[in-house]
Amino acid sequence: MSFANKQVLITGGAGFIGSNMAIRLAAQGAHVTVMDSMLPGYGGNVFNLEPVRDTVSINFSDMRDPYSLSYIVQGKDYIFNLAGQVSHQDSMSDPLMDMEINVKAQLVLLEACRKNNPAAVIVYASTRQFYGIPEYLPVDERHPINPPDVNGINKFAGEQYHTLYHRVHGLKTVSLRLTNTYGPRLLIKNARQGFIGWFINRAISGEVIQLFGGGEQLRDFNHVDDVVEAFLLAAETPACYGDYFNLSGDKESLYNVAHALISAAGKGVVERIPFPEERKKIDIGSFWGSSQKFSDVTGWHPKIDLKAGLESTYEFYARNHGKYLEEM
Amino acid sequence: MSFANKQVLITGGAGFIGSNMAIRLAAQGAHVTVMDSMLPGYGGNVFNLEPVRDTVSINFSDMRDPYSLSYIVQGKDYIFNLAGQVSHQDSMSDPLMDMEINVKAQLVLLEACRKNNPAAVIVYASTRQFYGIPEYLPVDERHPINPPDVNGINKFAGEQYHTLYHRVHGLKTVSLRLTNTYGPRLLIKNARQGFIGWFINRAISGEVIQLFGGGEQLRDFNHVDDVVEAFLLAAETPACYGDYFNLSGDKESLYNVAHALISAAGKGVVERIPFPEERKKIDIGSFWGSSQKFSDVTGWHPKIDLKAGLESTYEFYARNHGKYLEEM
Repeated sequence: MSFANKQVLITGGAGFIGSNMAIRLAAQGAHVTVMDSMLPGYGGNVFNLEPVRDTVSINFSDMRDPYSLSYIVQGKDYIFNLAGQVSHQDSMSDPLMDMEINVKAQLVLLEACRKNNPAAVIVYASTRQFYGIPEYLPVDERHPINPPDVNGINKFAGEQYHTLYHRVHGLKTVSLRLTNTYGPRLLIKNARQGFIGWFINRAISGEVIQLFGGGEQLRDFNHVDDVVEAFLLAAETPACYGDYFNLSGDKESLYNVAHALISAAGKGVVERIPFPEERKKIDIGSFWGSSQKFSDVTGWHPKIDLKAGLESTYEFYARNHGKYLEEM
Repeated sequence: MSFANKQVLITGGAGFIGSNMAIRLAAQGAHVTVMDSMLPGYGGNVFNLEPVRDTVSINFSDMRDPYSLSYIVQGKDYIFNLAGQVSHQDSMSDPLMDMEINVKAQLVLLEACRKNNPAAVIVYASTRQFYGIPEYLPVDERHPINPPDVNGINKFAGEQYHTLYHRVHGLKTVSLRLTNTYGPRLLIKNARQGFIGWFINRAISGEVIQLFGGGEQLRDFNHVDDVVEAFLLAAETPACYGDYFNLSGDKESLYNVAHALISAAGKGVVERIPFPEERKKIDIGSFWGSSQKFSDVTGWHPKIDLKAGLESTYEFYARNHGKYLEEM
């Protein structure tokens, strides 16, 4: 139990992965501070932290603010850096906002640590998004970088800052390049955290799930519990510091994922529609990655089967949908 | 004379390359607007525009300001986008400033054009800096991206925005990845625009040129007139739009460049010193690139021989050093 009695900061901690991590770490006896800007519509939801409301400390502040951040990072042993803008579509309609969160705020955090807490371990939630349209499959870490959208460009810059601050300033940074992550506490009110959240929304509401281009594209998926496990392993493994690693998991077609959720819900319907022009321009087709590099260093392998994971995820929302669909 | 009577905007136009371009375009009968933020110490110098003070329009404003920029871009046929922070060292000591100029301001310009002037041709001054330590020589455009410093990360993001805005929004963007550029109007007051400016400063003052690690590293060099020619060719060549190209030129050791300047000056001395730790961390060793891709599309080849170019450059500063060494 490496995290017992450790001081842990989770940025974006009221969001999807951050809140699951806070719950896990609190159970291990860590002293958890959650930080979240609560930007409307971005996934921060205090209900996510309901199971740990009495044990974790919640700090509402924006990572772009260097003053509060410089104070908050002090004394932390581990920083799980999950604050980010993840919507590809939003990054195209409001590119400056995406840049502020995924580029500027990352640099603010790293500068705050360099000056105030250079010994902290920092694990960054990066993304496989910036590989773009795959030139080969599965995609490993040597794949060229071809960001298909502003979000990809910005997330790559954010990740590179982390790597550079290890090489030049000695910070203990690790970046995990996440693929599609699903599970309890995912934002489902809109599609900002990806299509699975939106599919759950449609299934719960008994509405139509529209699949662009037929839904035959294959993607790979990780349950959030497996992703949280990966972050904890990365933090505990000095051989990871200064490096970046793909996470990857079970692969399946969008069509089959939609059907699994409809089947779990017992309602909803799939409709195949042509690709909207705006989406086609930034779509990457089929994608799956290899997490061999990370497995070799840490022994990590995802444990939760996609079908079982989707079913239990759906059950979470069947119980709690009021907290995720109403106005927040 | 494609630029006669055309409306041209040059960002960073009071700086080194921008002012040389303004002089060249004014001579061709273009209507030139120069824009410069005049950030102290960054290279903007109104004396640079002395030869065209009556023919070009100078607008002092910051590219990070979306309001003035959205107005200024309107009606321009060509935008030569030269505003940037180029000091590697500054990017490490003030990474947020580098990010503001090399990332945010680039996005502000592209958004301004997308909304207000999507037909403009935009040629961006990118850099070979983000290739990092070369894995092979000469470096072509397929070389991996391994930014050695914050400046490299940020310049790569800025370039990728340009490429993306062509692919997704149809803007006519071209990026030229510049190598060491020298010539009249280079900033010589400090080392922010590279070592040649500083070598000229030391030679004119009859002072010591310190060479880290002996100065045996090879670099390649372009005279600013050849670089300006490359920008004009890129702007006139639709086959370039949406793409990026290395510029490269004569290669020579730092030691020999220092000696050529001392020889032109008839004073000054070279001293070899050990590499300072902070510089060594972000140094890339010997580097030269290939501009074959750009030559294939445009026929560009640099014309000015390095030795002759350094001599005529020194003569410019011998005549005008007061305008470049005194407080601005």
